[in-house]
This record gives sequence, structure tokens and C-alpha cells, in this order.
Amino acid sequence: MGGTIRNLLCLVLVMGSLGGVAYGQFAKPDEAIAYRKAVMVLNAQHFGRMGAMVKGEKPFDQKAFSANASLVSTFSRLPWEAFMVPGSDQGNTAMKPEALKEKGKFEQTAKAFENAAAELNTAAAAGKLESVKDPFGKTAQSCKECHSQFKR
Amino acid sequence: MGGTIRNLLCLVLVMGSLGGVAYGQFAKPDEAIAYRKAVMVLNAQHFGRMGAMVKGEKPFDQKAFSANASLVSTFSRLPWEAFMVPGSDQGNTAMKPEALKEKGKFEQTAKAFENAAAELNTAAAAGKLESVKDPFGKTAQSCKECHSQFKR
Repeated sequence: MGGTIRNLLCLVLVMGSLGGVAYGQFAKPDEAIAYRKAVMVLNAQHFGRMGAMVKGEKPFDQKAFSANASLVSTFSRLPWEAFMVPGSDQGNTAMKPEALKEKGKFEQTAKAFENAAAELNTAAAAGKLESVKDPFGKTAQSCKECHSQFKR
Repeated sequence: MGGTIRNLLCLVLVMGSLGGVAYGQFAKPDEAIAYRKAVMVLNAQHFGRMGAMVKGEKPFDQKAFSANASLVSTFSRLPWEAFMVPGSDQGNTAMKPEALKEKGKFEQTAKAFENAAAELNTAAAAGKLESVKDPFGKTAQSCKECHSQFKR
């Protein structure tokens, strides 16, 4: 009986500290939501600027393309902790609760985006329009895959 | 009379094209507002993480401090074009119209922040807590100076 109570107390302590760890750098869920939204606004802007060149709506400018690719690659590494904050599937967010329930799956799609964005950045630094088209498409695909599973 | 009309047409054309240039990468003022807000959300988050270490609320972690300083330095170069979009002093924004009216002054305070953030990044990459305190304070001061002049 004493052992059971000790185990229970232990569980509560562990869960409490895990809660703290999971919040990480964010004081509350709303702060995490605002942060990840901000990252996505910047991603959309800089990815869109590359898209306009890939689609031929704007002339290809290697320096500008590369600067955008570098930013998207930097941004791609930032928001995942913010998505994993408990309770941040509620409120002013488009995140489905599935992201918190299926963390492994979420992290896998997040990592696929990170990798694709890094590959795009490498191609852009050295590249011509033809050499960025494939990694650009792959990155776009990785956005879609995550959104279709975890975005409302 | 013909000359006057030609001059007037010319003025309209020039203003139209200037409008296009000033909008730059943003389709409309709201997009520019959302973009610069996003940059500021990220700035606040990563600057705040450094602040917690400078204030002693969290232990100094040189690697984490440096990563935050690098991000703030990157972000510090991004939002200025978005602040200069005509009409973006209206709507869901805290920017004072003075930012658009006194562009030179605005650009000067923006540049002071960029320079301070770059200096902080350099100090952080090599630094100990003592060596980042001054450039951190200088960067914080540059935030305040811009906000007190151009933020509602």
C-alpha cells in the first residue's frame, strides 16, 4: 500500500515535470500558438517568393532565390517544440489534436519538411532554375503532407 | 495646356510605378502587416530567451544564447520593407503613421537595431555572460527607441 502511494506520487511528479518540459520555452499554449503561426507566416512569404520564380511569374534571380531558401531552411527548424505544447490544439489554432496524439507521426512529417528545405537551400546556393525545381517541388509536397494530416 | 496634361499623366504613371515598387514583395498592406508582426513575435521570443539568461532567471547557456542571437540578427534584417508599404499604417497595426512620413528617421532607428543585433551576435558567438551584457542592453535600447517613436 505504501509502495502504491509512493508509485502514485512518483507518477504525479514525473507527469508534472514532463508538463514543464513539454511547455519548454513557452509560458502558455497561446504563446506557442502565436510563435508557430509567426514562423508559418514567414515560411509562406519566403516560399511564395521562390514559387513565383519556379512558376515563371517572376524572372529567376539566383541570389534572391538563395536568400529565400536559406531563410525557409532556418525557419523549418524552429516551430516543432511550439506545436508539441499540451493544450495548444485548442483556441486560435488550425492544428488538429492528432498532432499531439500522434507525436511520432507528426515529428516524422516535420522532419521531412526540414530535410527537404535543407536540400532546397543547398541546391539554391549553387543552382540554376532547373536545379532548384525538383527540391522546390519536394519541399512543397512535404508542406502538403503535414498539413493534410495535422491542419484543420 | 497639352504640356500640363502630359506632365500630369507622367506624374500619375510615375506615382503608379512607385506604388508598385514600394509594395515590393507584398500583394497588399495587410500582408505586409502580418509579415512584420510575425517577425516581431519571433524577435520577442528569442530576445526574451536571451533576456532570461542576462537577468539571471535562467542559467547562462552559451550555445543557446548564441543560437538566439543569431536568429535575432537574421530577423533584424527582414521586416523593414514591410513597414514601408503605403497604407500599412491603417488597420490591424500598432505602427504610427510617422513611420511612413519620416522614412529617413525610421530607417535610421531600424538600422541601429540591425547593427546592435549583429554586434550582440558576434559577442554571443565568442562570449561569456559578462561579454554579452553590454551588447544585449544596447540592442534592447534600440528596440525601445524605435518603438517609442513609431509604435502606438
